[in-house]
Amino acid sequence: MNVLPPALSELIDAFNALPGVGPRTAERYAYWFVRHDLNAGSRLAAALTALPSGIGYCEKTFALIPADQQYSDLYTDPRRDKTVVAVVAEPFDILAIEKTSQYHGTYHVLGGLVSPIDGISPEQLHIKELLQRIDEDNVTELILATNASVEGESTALYIQQQIGPKKIKISRLARGLPIGVDLEYADQITLGRAIEHRQILSQPDNGNK
Amino acid sequence: MNVLPPALSELIDAFNALPGVGPRTAERYAYWFVRHDLNAGSRLAAALTALPSGIGYCEKTFALIPADQQYSDLYTDPRRDKTVVAVVAEPFDILAIEKTSQYHGTYHVLGGLVSPIDGISPEQLHIKELLQRIDEDNVTELILATNASVEGESTALYIQQQIGPKKIKISRLARGLPIGVDLEYADQITLGRAIEHRQILSQPDNGNK
Repeated sequence: MNVLPPALSELIDAFNALPGVGPRTAERYAYWFVRHDLNAGSRLAAALTALPSGIGYCEKTFALIPADQQYSDLYTDPRRDKTVVAVVAEPFDILAIEKTSQYHGTYHVLGGLVSPIDGISPEQLHIKELLQRIDEDNVTELILATNASVEGESTALYIQQQIGPKKIKISRLARGLPIGVDLEYADQITLGRAIEHRQILSQPDNGNK
Repeated sequence: MNVLPPALSELIDAFNALPGVGPRTAERYAYWFVRHDLNAGSRLAAALTALPSGIGYCEKTFALIPADQQYSDLYTDPRRDKTVVAVVAEPFDILAIEKTSQYHGTYHVLGGLVSPIDGISPEQLHIKELLQRIDEDNVTELILATNASVEGESTALYIQQQIGPKKIKISRLARGLPIGVDLEYADQITLGRAIEHRQILSQPDNGNK
């Protein structure tokens, strides 16, 4: 005997398939449509249906773009500095960096990180295309904006090795104490990194500046 | 300039409308469809589209049922005791009670709780139908399974008053310490209630049992 109507169970199961959505949360979402407005789901349904035909990948940066475009606006915009490239693992990392409004260069999405455990080798990532871009766009600085995880660090190292003799500036995002976090609450590794990469405010001017 | 393709922004906005889903979570859900499989959304879309025509309300208990049924299986099943009725606020409360496998009576969904602040008066709830059921089904026990909130308590009190002279057993769900919670971590009100409604294990047999 079904306690819930099959139409509702199916909706709960479909929500349950989403990442981080357990049975309870799936029930809450499904029930919201029942309580709120049975037809409210049409917007979400339409958005889901339109998704596959609505998005594509930039041929240059591999960022997510509208399906009818060839290149990302963040690449073609003349105000963006094409000689500076931030290398990110996933398309959504671009969104995070854009929200800071601090960056005016372009992006390059790797499409993942090197991970022998998950069977992801460097050849599967867009590293070849990155090396090509460095030449084509006369890139002068590469910001390796991958996570500070084992995969993120080793991917950054791999890219650094691939670029090798090319004389361009390569940087990583600064690691240190997050804004608003007290010293006493910082974890040891973060605090250790913050001490190691301490920022010099002033020093005696004894020749070796 | 849009950082994200409109098809993706729209999907994020649609997820963002769900209860308890903030912009970050909405992004995570939307991006899952991009990463996982662009067509994976079709299942959720189909479930959402099928929902309005797939569910209805039991004419007797107001539980959620398949649209092509008239009564809830939990009511028509001959194994369920129609003389015992658990009164709940929302249809999903039934699911919570059913999961315990401890209850073999029937249900009555009020469709909310009396709440002057939200403008919900007793007339808007299925209380009239409940009183009718008590007569029709010769109900002998009513379990007022509403929450221990102000609204839940006052709704239970209201129903109790409405039944008035009718000689039936009326009960509330037991309040006390949850299983697995240590005394020292229990909140004062819960602990107070647990002391007040302490369960007698044995007592001297001095006539007034």
